[in-house]
Amino acid sequence: MSSVVPVRRATVVGAGTIGLAWTTLFLAHGLHVTVNTRRADAEQAVREGVELFAATLPEGPADPEQLLRWLTIEPDVAKAVAEADVVQENVREELAYKQELFALIERSAPAHTLLLSSSSSLGADDIGATLGDPSTLLVGHPFNPAHLVPLVEVIPGARTAPETVARAEDFYRSLGKTPVVLRAPVTGTVANRLQSALLREAVHLVLEEIVTVDELDAAVTGSLGLRWATVGPFEAFHLGGGPGGLRRMLAAVGPKIAKEWEHLGKPQLDDAAVELLVRQAEKAFGTDSYPRRAAERDARQIAVLGALRDLAARHREEGAP
Amino acid sequence: MSSVVPVRRATVVGAGTIGLAWTTLFLAHGLHVTVNTRRADAEQAVREGVELFAATLPEGPADPEQLLRWLTIEPDVAKAVAEADVVQENVREELAYKQELFALIERSAPAHTLLLSSSSSLGADDIGATLGDPSTLLVGHPFNPAHLVPLVEVIPGARTAPETVARAEDFYRSLGKTPVVLRAPVTGTVANRLQSALLREAVHLVLEEIVTVDELDAAVTGSLGLRWATVGPFEAFHLGGGPGGLRRMLAAVGPKIAKEWEHLGKPQLDDAAVELLVRQAEKAFGTDSYPRRAAERDARQIAVLGALRDLAARHREEGAP
Repeated sequence: MSSVVPVRRATVVGAGTIGLAWTTLFLAHGLHVTVNTRRADAEQAVREGVELFAATLPEGPADPEQLLRWLTIEPDVAKAVAEADVVQENVREELAYKQELFALIERSAPAHTLLLSSSSSLGADDIGATLGDPSTLLVGHPFNPAHLVPLVEVIPGARTAPETVARAEDFYRSLGKTPVVLRAPVTGTVANRLQSALLREAVHLVLEEIVTVDELDAAVTGSLGLRWATVGPFEAFHLGGGPGGLRRMLAAVGPKIAKEWEHLGKPQLDDAAVELLVRQAEKAFGTDSYPRRAAERDARQIAVLGALRDLAARHREEGAP
Repeated sequence: MSSVVPVRRATVVGAGTIGLAWTTLFLAHGLHVTVNTRRADAEQAVREGVELFAATLPEGPADPEQLLRWLTIEPDVAKAVAEADVVQENVREELAYKQELFALIERSAPAHTLLLSSSSSLGADDIGATLGDPSTLLVGHPFNPAHLVPLVEVIPGARTAPETVARAEDFYRSLGKTPVVLRAPVTGTVANRLQSALLREAVHLVLEEIVTVDELDAAVTGSLGLRWATVGPFEAFHLGGGPGGLRRMLAAVGPKIAKEWEHLGKPQLDDAAVELLVRQAEKAFGTDSYPRRAAERDARQIAVLGALRDLAARHREEGAP
């Protein structure tokens, strides 16, 4: 089931934020990376992106000069993918554009090349509709910031080969990622849908003036965030039920939860709502020094990942707990 | 606005899981604690609870023998609260029972005593309806495990004095907690409502066979959990918008999110659904060695809290970023 062709050469198509985050992560894992972009400022944009993301790689900062040695910029798609073992595509979410792009890639890339799209809204069946052989194509959707956050949702199409799924999982795992394969296509992605669901109630609670945006954020980081960084929602409930597990938990609180579902808010994201949310956010979090604030977020995420990694390593050593 | 009477003596009413978690945390912060319970096995239950929770205090383990020196068990409510600066109540969620209890407490406790209820479903107005002076009463709702997770939702009633709110905030902060004061009462609590909202979509995705419970959990711990342990949902979006902040973010993805809200699942938590969820959870997470699995969760949460605390301390020292 595992990759027969080791991945040595990766081509990143599109040099926006997500493309450059992938680029940096690929480089940090020893791959030769070709960035395919027709940006006029390609040289500078790619350099700046790699410098930015190299500082906040999950396993520690890397020297961008070292990384950039193994990077090539190639504005011509056909040339860019000619020797690629993996292509990770990150162009705008426009179906016809992606179809045309992948048709071109199929003509120019080796037969074994894994074709991965970062798309958050288009499926492999649509993106690959015009391909002669879409069996090596799937969606590998990262979560921002893409170089740092572990999750990659792997979403095969009906014509994606099982071996392609296994190879994509292997590839993402080799980058330190956590691939989760979806068993059926879904509108949006799992993480985005869950985020939307929580955000809906969060917006409701702010519009109802129960809490402000920063108070709501403090409530989340001080409870659910901490919980879900360490165990997911189901395991948390399975543990919440004590030795009786999820069965006991749902017997105890299931009806209450089902009732809560009926009472969840249904806010409108109209102009007035947006204005209120934005004003509170700007007041609470500030509008200047964005790079500093983003770096602080990244530093915190790296600290959390590092702490959990160290703990797991310690427990492995001890053969415990 | 801050507490005029320093808190030295706390009385915990009810010796279930939440009561004993509060007890241990109070003891670890140097308070004299009286536990009011009529449990026949009070002595043993309290000792075991303190031993259990002392090992997973957020600022490091404490010696339970040391803690237990400052603990008294008193089955009589009137005696138990006679010298209390703070009462934290944790009895069963039954309004008449809580009303009777607080009427008794009011007659026996000093006038300055902060009256705090851990209730997750009953409000201060209802609980204090029969009191002559409910101005010192409010709900201080913890999040499980209560000795470890920072959030305490502080929910005043219409007759709670503003000074009581300020004193409760001070008190919870002195324990290392993150108090969040609700500006208006709401059915349930903020954290529980947000959890319910996400859980609803989580259940939907599992029932639709997009992912299994453990795959969903892996997706959450590998993305949203990590994100929300470090910045809340609004700050995450404010940063997601780059220098343009939440305004730019909502302009870009607001309509997409509003559309996603329409398509969120509306699962039924019927017997078949419960059976499917339970079976997957038992298979993925196991049904034996509950204490080990709970200890592992706690160890992970402590590791995350410690990492974020260390990072904040380092940044304070450096005056950056």
